Amino acid sequence: MKGSYLSKVYCESFGLLTDLYELTMAYGYWKEKMEDREAVFHLFFRKKPFDGSFAVVAGMETALEFIERFRFEKSDLEYLRSLKDSLGKPLFEVGFLDYLKDLRLRLSVDAMEEGSPVFPYEPLIRVQGPILHAQIMESALLNIINFQTLIATKAARICFAANPDVIVEFGLRRAQGIDGAIAASRSAFIGGCHSTSNVIAGKLFGIPVKGTHAHSWVMAFDHEIDSFRAFARALPRECIFLIDTYDSVEGAKRAVKVAKEMRKEGKEMVGVRLDSGDLTHLSIEVRKILDEGGFPKAKIMASNELDEYLIFDLKHQGSKVTIWGVGTNLVTAKGQSALDGVYKLSAIKDRRGKWQYRLKISEQMSKVTLPGIPQVRRYFNEKGAVADMIYDVAMKIGKPVQMFQLADSSVKKKIHPAWSHRDLLVPMMKKGKKIYSQPSLEAMRKKTYLELSTLPVAMRRFLNPSPHFVGIEKGLYDLKLAMIDELNKGIS
Amino acid sequence: MKGSYLSKVYCESFGLLTDLYELTMAYGYWKEKMEDREAVFHLFFRKKPFDGSFAVVAGMETALEFIERFRFEKSDLEYLRSLKDSLGKPLFEVGFLDYLKDLRLRLSVDAMEEGSPVFPYEPLIRVQGPILHAQIMESALLNIINFQTLIATKAARICFAANPDVIVEFGLRRAQGIDGAIAASRSAFIGGCHSTSNVIAGKLFGIPVKGTHAHSWVMAFDHEIDSFRAFARALPRECIFLIDTYDSVEGAKRAVKVAKEMRKEGKEMVGVRLDSGDLTHLSIEVRKILDEGGFPKAKIMASNELDEYLIFDLKHQGSKVTIWGVGTNLVTAKGQSALDGVYKLSAIKDRRGKWQYRLKISEQMSKVTLPGIPQVRRYFNEKGAVADMIYDVAMKIGKPVQMFQLADSSVKKKIHPAWSHRDLLVPMMKKGKKIYSQPSLEAMRKKTYLELSTLPVAMRRFLNPSPHFVGIEKGLYDLKLAMIDELNKGIS
Repeated sequence: MKGSYLSKVYCESFGLLTDLYELTMAYGYWKEKMEDREAVFHLFFRKKPFDGSFAVVAGMETALEFIERFRFEKSDLEYLRSLKDSLGKPLFEVGFLDYLKDLRLRLSVDAMEEGSPVFPYEPLIRVQGPILHAQIMESALLNIINFQTLIATKAARICFAANPDVIVEFGLRRAQGIDGAIAASRSAFIGGCHSTSNVIAGKLFGIPVKGTHAHSWVMAFDHEIDSFRAFARALPRECIFLIDTYDSVEGAKRAVKVAKEMRKEGKEMVGVRLDSGDLTHLSIEVRKILDEGGFPKAKIMASNELDEYLIFDLKHQGSKVTIWGVGTNLVTAKGQSALDGVYKLSAIKDRRGKWQYRLKISEQMSKVTLPGIPQVRRYFNEKGAVADMIYDVAMKIGKPVQMFQLADSSVKKKIHPAWSHRDLLVPMMKKGKKIYSQPSLEAMRKKTYLELSTLPVAMRRFLNPSPHFVGIEKGLYDLKLAMIDELNKGIS
Repeated sequence: MKGSYLSKVYCESFGLLTDLYELTMAYGYWKEKMEDREAVFHLFFRKKPFDGSFAVVAGMETALEFIERFRFEKSDLEYLRSLKDSLGKPLFEVGFLDYLKDLRLRLSVDAMEEGSPVFPYEPLIRVQGPILHAQIMESALLNIINFQTLIATKAARICFAANPDVIVEFGLRRAQGIDGAIAASRSAFIGGCHSTSNVIAGKLFGIPVKGTHAHSWVMAFDHEIDSFRAFARALPRECIFLIDTYDSVEGAKRAVKVAKEMRKEGKEMVGVRLDSGDLTHLSIEVRKILDEGGFPKAKIMASNELDEYLIFDLKHQGSKVTIWGVGTNLVTAKGQSALDGVYKLSAIKDRRGKWQYRLKISEQMSKVTLPGIPQVRRYFNEKGAVADMIYDVAMKIGKPVQMFQLADSSVKKKIHPAWSHRDLLVPMMKKGKKIYSQPSLEAMRKKTYLELSTLPVAMRRFLNPSPHFVGIEKGLYDLKLAMIDELNKGIS
C-alpha cells in the first residue's frame, strides 16, 4: 500500500492539471513543428524556506507517477475543443487535439532522491526530452515538488526542535484542501514525523496512524469521568485521555482515577493530552499528578498551534511533554506558505541537433537562470558535507576543480583532492520509463535523518543558521558570464 | 460541468479522509450504544483572517457532496481491520466494521450560503443528527470549509485592492498540493477573481481560463522577436506577449513591432505582460511605448509575487497595469495560511430525548464554546448590515431584542424595531438528503460582491478595519454564563 497514490486517489487524468499557457505554448510548438526539439529544463528554488539553511527534497515518486500517467481523456479533449479565443473562434485546431489524444511523455528525468538536503539554486530535477513534453507538465511538476519539499523541510525542522521526542502530524482539518492534507502527511513523514492522524494517508502510504479523542467525546457525557471510563472500555490499550475540556489539573486527577480502575483489570493508560493553556506549567503539574498517582510511565502529549519555535521554547522551559501533536503550522508551512520553485529551459537542440545553451536575464539579477545541462556534486570530508558544486555534464571540469560561490561570486573555492563526492541528480526515468528503484517511505525518512546529520549543527539552528557553500564550477561560471555579456550587448 | 467536483476528481471513497480519533470515538459511541443519540455540532472560526474584519464563506457545495458521498469501501474496511493497538490486538471489533460498511450519514445541515460575509465566532454550519454521524465527518468538513473560506476571503481582499481591474488566479504551481490548487481556483472565483490559469478548474467548474506564455517560450527561439511572431501565428487573437525575458523595455518595443505586423493582417495584439522589476516604473514606460506605437487599447498585465497590499500600493503609485495575475499569495493565503475553524458539540439529547446543552471551558477564555442550537441573524438598516446576533432556535427571544457583544460583553445593543433581518443559516440538507437548490458558481461570485457592498467601507480596509458588531442574544448569553458558573463550581 505504500507510495504511488495518484492512481488510487484521482480518477481524473492529468492532462488538464496545468496552466492554460502550457497548452497554448504546446500548441505554438506544434504549429511551428518544433514539438520534438530536444530540450533541457531544470527545477530549482531561490529562497531558503523559513530562513533556514536547507530544504529536504520530497515529491519525486509522485512526480514520476504523474509523468507516467499523463494523458488526455475524451472529456479533456472535449473541454479543450470548447475553448474559444477573444473573437469566439476555437482556441485550438482539431489537428492539435488529435495530437494530444495520443501524447505520452517521453521524458528522461534525473532528480535528487527524496530525503536529500538541497540548497537554493541547486537543480532538484533535470528533465530532458521533446520540448513540448517537457513544457506541458511544468505546472503539475512544480505543484507536486514545491509543496512536498516545503512540508518535508518544515517537518525536519520541527522534528529537530523536538528531538528526541515524537511528532505526530495532526494537520488534516486545517490543511489547504484534500491533497494539501494527503500530500502533507506523506512529506511530513519523510521529514521525520512519527505518525499521522490522517487515516487515508495511513492506508495509502503505510504511515502509522495515531489519535486520542476530542472535547466533543467528553461533552457527550454528563461527567468527564464517565467519558474517560467509556473510552477505557472501548480502547483499553490506546487510552490517551484529553484532559482540558473543563480544567486540565482536575482532568489529570480524573484520568489517574480511571487509570487506577483500569489497572485493577490489568490494563494500562498510555497517557494524557493537553490542548490549551500554558503547556509548560500544566505539563509539570500534570506530570506530578501522574507520578504521584503511580503512573510514572504515562506519557504527556500536547497540541495547540505548535511549531518548531514553540516546541524548542517549551522544552527549554522544562515542559514535561514528550509527544507533540503538530497540525496547522506543519501542514500549511507556517512562515512560508510556498516554496518558490521554478522550472526553466536551459538548453535546446537546434535544427541540426546541436545544443544551444540558454539563459534568462530579466530586470532582477536574482532571476538570472543557469544555462546548460546541470548536475549537482556534493563533496564530503571526514566530518560530513563541505560544499556542493553545480556543473555541466557536457563540459569538461578543469583541474584543479574550482568553483565560484553562487551567493557571492567573489568567493572562490578549490576542491581538496582528499574529498569524496557524490552526484545528487540520479537517473530516475529514461524516455518515459521509470528506471529508478523506489525506496520505501520509511527509507526516505531515514535518509532525511542521516543526510541532515552530515551537515554541521550550525546549519540546522533556527536563528541565523550558517549557510552551506554552493558554487558553480568555473567553466560553467565563465560560460554564464559570457552569455550574459552577449545578451546585454544585444539589448544596448 | 459546474460544481460538485469530488465525484469527478476522486475515485477514493471518503470514509478514511478523517483523523483516526473520529473513528475511535465512533467506535466508543458504538460500544456504548450511544451512536444514534441526537446531537448538534456547529462550525466556527475564532481569528479574523489576515487581520481583516470579515471572511467570505466558501466550500458548502463541496461539503454537502462530501456528506452525501460518505461511505467506507471494502479496501477501507480491510485497512481498518489491519490496524492494531499497542499490544498488537485489533484496534476495532469486527462488528463495528460491519456497522461502518452500511453507514450513510443521516445528517441535517443548516449553513451559510457561499459568498456570505461571516465574522469570528459565528456558526457557519450547524449539523444535527446521530452523534456518530455528526462526529465522524468532522475532520473532512473542517478541511473543506477552512480552506475554501480562507481563499475566498483572500480573493475578496485582493479584488477589492485591484478594483475595478481584473484578477486572474495563477496559483497552480505553488499551491499546497493538487487540491490546494483545484479548491483554491474554485474559491478564488467565488471571492471575485475573473478567471484562472488552472485548466482542470475550468473543466470542472466552468471558470474562464486564461494564460499568456512563459519565458521558456521566448528562450526556445534564437531571438525574442521570433518567439513573438511564432506566438502570433499560433494564437493571433490571444496575444499577450511576455516581455521581460531579457529586457522589458526592449521587449515592449519588439511586441509593438510584431503587433504592427499583425495589424497589417487584420489581427490585434491583446497586450503585454511584465513579470519582474519595478512594475510601476516599467508599466509607465511600457504604456508610453504601446501608446506611441499606436496601441492605446493594448492591455498591460503584471505578475510577480503580488498580493492585496502590493497591488493597492502599485495602483496608488500610478502603475498602468490593468490585469493582475496573482498566484502564490492568493492560493496559499499569504499572511495566514489556515483559517482556525473548529467544530464543537453544543447539544445532545439525553436517553429520554431531552436536549442537554453543552459547553467547553478549558484554560483559555477564548476557547469557551457556545451551547445550544444556534442560528445567526443579520440586521439591516437602510444603509446596510448593522449587526449580527447569535441566538438559539429553541429559546424564545425576549422583547425588546437585546444582545451582548461577543468581543466585549460589557457592550449591549438593542435591536431597533425598524431594522429588517435575515437568518443566515439556511436549511441545506435534511437527514442526509440535499434540499438546497445549489446556485451557480457565478451566482456565488455575485453574492460575494453584493453582500460585501452592504458592509461599511471602513470594514473592508486593510489597516485597522472597523469590526462588525456581533452579539449573543440576551437569553442565550444568560444561559451560557449560568453554565460556566455551574461548571466552575464543579471544579472548585
